[in-house]
Amino acid sequence: MTRHRVGAHTIEFGNRPRIVSSAAVVGPKEGRGPLSALFDLALDDPLYGQSSYEQAECAIFQEACSRCLKKAKAEPEQVQAMLGGDLLNQIMAASLAARQLEIPFLGLYGACSTMAEALLLGAILADGGYADPVLCAAGSHYCTAERQYRFPLEYGNQRTPAAQWTVTGAGACLVSAEGPALARISLATVGQIKDMGIKDANNMGAAMAPAAADTLIHHFLDTGRKASDYDKIITGDLGRVGGSLLEELMEQAGFALPEEKHMDCGLCVFDPKEDVHAGGSGCGCSASVLSAMILPRLKSGEWKRVLFMATGALLSTTTSQQGESIPGVAHALVLEGGEGN
Amino acid sequence: MTRHRVGAHTIEFGNRPRIVSSAAVVGPKEGRGPLSALFDLALDDPLYGQSSYEQAECAIFQEACSRCLKKAKAEPEQVQAMLGGDLLNQIMAASLAARQLEIPFLGLYGACSTMAEALLLGAILADGGYADPVLCAAGSHYCTAERQYRFPLEYGNQRTPAAQWTVTGAGACLVSAEGPALARISLATVGQIKDMGIKDANNMGAAMAPAAADTLIHHFLDTGRKASDYDKIITGDLGRVGGSLLEELMEQAGFALPEEKHMDCGLCVFDPKEDVHAGGSGCGCSASVLSAMILPRLKSGEWKRVLFMATGALLSTTTSQQGESIPGVAHALVLEGGEGN
Repeated sequence: MTRHRVGAHTIEFGNRPRIVSSAAVVGPKEGRGPLSALFDLALDDPLYGQSSYEQAECAIFQEACSRCLKKAKAEPEQVQAMLGGDLLNQIMAASLAARQLEIPFLGLYGACSTMAEALLLGAILADGGYADPVLCAAGSHYCTAERQYRFPLEYGNQRTPAAQWTVTGAGACLVSAEGPALARISLATVGQIKDMGIKDANNMGAAMAPAAADTLIHHFLDTGRKASDYDKIITGDLGRVGGSLLEELMEQAGFALPEEKHMDCGLCVFDPKEDVHAGGSGCGCSASVLSAMILPRLKSGEWKRVLFMATGALLSTTTSQQGESIPGVAHALVLEGGEGN
Repeated sequence: MTRHRVGAHTIEFGNRPRIVSSAAVVGPKEGRGPLSALFDLALDDPLYGQSSYEQAECAIFQEACSRCLKKAKAEPEQVQAMLGGDLLNQIMAASLAARQLEIPFLGLYGACSTMAEALLLGAILADGGYADPVLCAAGSHYCTAERQYRFPLEYGNQRTPAAQWTVTGAGACLVSAEGPALARISLATVGQIKDMGIKDANNMGAAMAPAAADTLIHHFLDTGRKASDYDKIITGDLGRVGGSLLEELMEQAGFALPEEKHMDCGLCVFDPKEDVHAGGSGCGCSASVLSAMILPRLKSGEWKRVLFMATGALLSTTTSQQGESIPGVAHALVLEGGEGN
């Protein structure tokens, strides 16, 4: 009866909705990284001329959305829905950007998996003809995330080797059933919450890896595919620690994920000399790398088909202080590129 | 091109998805209120046998979901997606419930509008055949909300006359394209963020009323309907202050909302003698009243058609302390009941 399903966790899009435009706006550290030239805007100032980092996070989110719409020559009033979120409590960056843009807004929270969650729901809206075009966006800011989840930067706290560096940046995509495509969305696998008992707020990679493995295994089981069916299996922000754990978990489950097939946005975004320890993280990590690097390679035909799987660690300071472990979640999308898509 | 649209903000569901079961679990104060006999479970203890109010909030959320599934004779593994959220930072109640239920989970944040947001997206998933059945749920807890957004209860802080009392409770609905229906979902209007500059965390009704008016006006414009086309226009938790403001704003906009047509879940759920000031609020307010009172009246045919519009105030302590005002949002669903639905 559920006509758009393949297996237990995977959705198939009959119309293969299109990502018709995208934009990424990032902070100075990201702007000095390997993807430097690929971002739409790299700021000189992490405050972006605002009086607080939270306001800066909101302005960056909004700027990514506005640039995405501009590149598609779309006005905000033509957009039928906006889906997105961020890491701030009550997703204030996304909410305040939506207030400014005046687009009907559905707020999401999937921690660092938010970009995949937004695209997954955005693809459903466009595929089914419920809203079109749909703006999907996610963002984060290093300074606000450290203050909210760990320690304010002013404390000068030392970071552990497994710690990741939250990306200051935001990415936005406009999704539509029509128009020229950067890439098309053919399948999506909805993730379950997985929790293997990790309690270390400085080891988000380990908290997320089991969820990533679970979603990837479900994706392979549902579709009958394997890693070799993709040019790349791209995780959001597992980083060095979580990335190796994912490969190990996949090996154990009998679904090999060879290192050369696996790419992690958290390991692409920063120059290793930048002292980011286990890599980048945050909603803005996969969202900005998607726009800056993944979609252009799909459009050019360098990649024909990738699995984009953003990963989230649902860390709450309140429940952590009460002894709870950190649940993880991951959602995956198949993005198809190349000639005529 | 967008085939399921009516006007700029409204979605039309060709298959009119069904709410096939629902459940509501509430705290002791709610259990002493006018809807006492209608809840599936009213607890004696707001801690629900847990060691923190946050854990209790999660257990209440999970219990509402489990009871909803049980009433539909559905096992968690048959449910293709769970959509929901709550007021805790990082929506931990919903996330931990989803961890326990092991259902593919899409986390939402719409503050007290979350139940409508979940049903709106759940209806799209079921209507389009992307996931079926879908579990939609929302919850809140007075003690966690006061601590997180205002003052810990232990401070004994005095509440102002415009303050509302966050409902301790959760509501869950199972949505499917098939099966016997408590009610059917025919239309949904997606709300925009509206902000008239309210900065008082003890006057959420005033912060939400402009968003409620905006969504209601868009609904009337998109559909050509008026208040008299509904047995009731049901708002989530505007309370006494926000409710009057909505009626005033509608009057000013030339779309009368007569007092007898307007019902607010926040004004139904508590006994006025319970000293709740301007009424109930919280995600759990509209979610539990929907299950306990609205759906049964639709099923019995007492009401043929209502507009269920949950309202959210996107209050963040961080941005409020930085001088930001409180943005509001409201999403509306047309629920149809009666003979043969």
